[in-house]
Amino acid sequence: MDLQVAIDRVTLDKAVDLAQQLDGQVDIIEFGTSLIKDYGLEQIQARLPKLQHAKLLLDLKTIDEGNYEFDKGFAVGDILTVMGAASPDTLTSVYQLTQSRGKQMFIDMMEITAAKTAQIVGYPDAIYGIHHAKDSQAGFDAAATVADFHESFPEVQHISVAGGIDLPMAQKLATQGLAESVIVGGAIVKTADPVAAAQKFMEVMH
Amino acid sequence: MDLQVAIDRVTLDKAVDLAQQLDGQVDIIEFGTSLIKDYGLEQIQARLPKLQHAKLLLDLKTIDEGNYEFDKGFAVGDILTVMGAASPDTLTSVYQLTQSRGKQMFIDMMEITAAKTAQIVGYPDAIYGIHHAKDSQAGFDAAATVADFHESFPEVQHISVAGGIDLPMAQKLATQGLAESVIVGGAIVKTADPVAAAQKFMEVMH
Repeated sequence: MDLQVAIDRVTLDKAVDLAQQLDGQVDIIEFGTSLIKDYGLEQIQARLPKLQHAKLLLDLKTIDEGNYEFDKGFAVGDILTVMGAASPDTLTSVYQLTQSRGKQMFIDMMEITAAKTAQIVGYPDAIYGIHHAKDSQAGFDAAATVADFHESFPEVQHISVAGGIDLPMAQKLATQGLAESVIVGGAIVKTADPVAAAQKFMEVMH
Repeated sequence: MDLQVAIDRVTLDKAVDLAQQLDGQVDIIEFGTSLIKDYGLEQIQARLPKLQHAKLLLDLKTIDEGNYEFDKGFAVGDILTVMGAASPDTLTSVYQLTQSRGKQMFIDMMEITAAKTAQIVGYPDAIYGIHHAKDSQAGFDAAATVADFHESFPEVQHISVAGGIDLPMAQKLATQGLAESVIVGGAIVKTADPVAAAQKFMEVMH
């Protein structure tokens, strides 16, 4: 199972520093939506040296103008996010663009109904990202949610999960064996030693 | 009825130039999502002089992390957009933040069901923005769509509409008297003389 570390709501300098430290330690480094909206893709491209080991995921949260955003985004990152709440036309067009570039598309499944989910599970190479809104007041059991999703949509091959994941939950998800990647934010990047924290996650997951 | 001009998919220099030209000609100047994701709020704030007449709408398309994005956004703009597809917790929190700042919230109603719409029409000071996805292949009759929306949700006081609006449709919407504002993009900013084009729209609308 891959470890994705989310870097968010920090200065671009701090984000670049964290990415450099974590490259080689984790599988995927995510630059969160706040970094894109605060600093823009052009500055991220100018100031982030190319990662040597990890893939770079940009949490674009595209919901319209899919080809424009994905074309710009793939100049910088390896994996881009699109909202499951986007129109089917948007999802299909960014999936086609992603396939043609040999890159990866991550569909953010936040706040969509089971009916809408059923409409959009037909992108076999896409990663389906399950999480609650950060603004949500409700609790979230990552392993139970992944199990439910897998039972409802067994055709989905690539599942990613996020939401307050700590070491015991990361271990539980690894043992469960359904999710392809887990996303960890604060439990790594908000510690005094992010590299050591990332290594602990890698240990319990492998 | 107010005229909102959308500036999108151009360089930041060009966007700033257009905004300066159109300030005083139109009611609301929109900086589109592409400008935010390409250049970031910090550069927009640094390079766009404060508008003297028009309100500045930033098409943030917030779908999570509402308070963070709206707090950053209101340092730059007067009106910010949030997706109707966001969680009710996100919508409520950004509405409260918007009210406390004396600013305006624009809810982007793209791709949401009537059931979800019914859940989120209870923000009396919010602007409800009706449009099709730019990626959508389907046709769009702005006046008919506004009439349908008004009939279904008569409690909504502030309606905005966008989608391929030309001079005859702007005039029709003004006569209809249901929408508070119309959003025009290419039909103004992609002409040889955007100021003259904006003036023509203002004439047919008033």
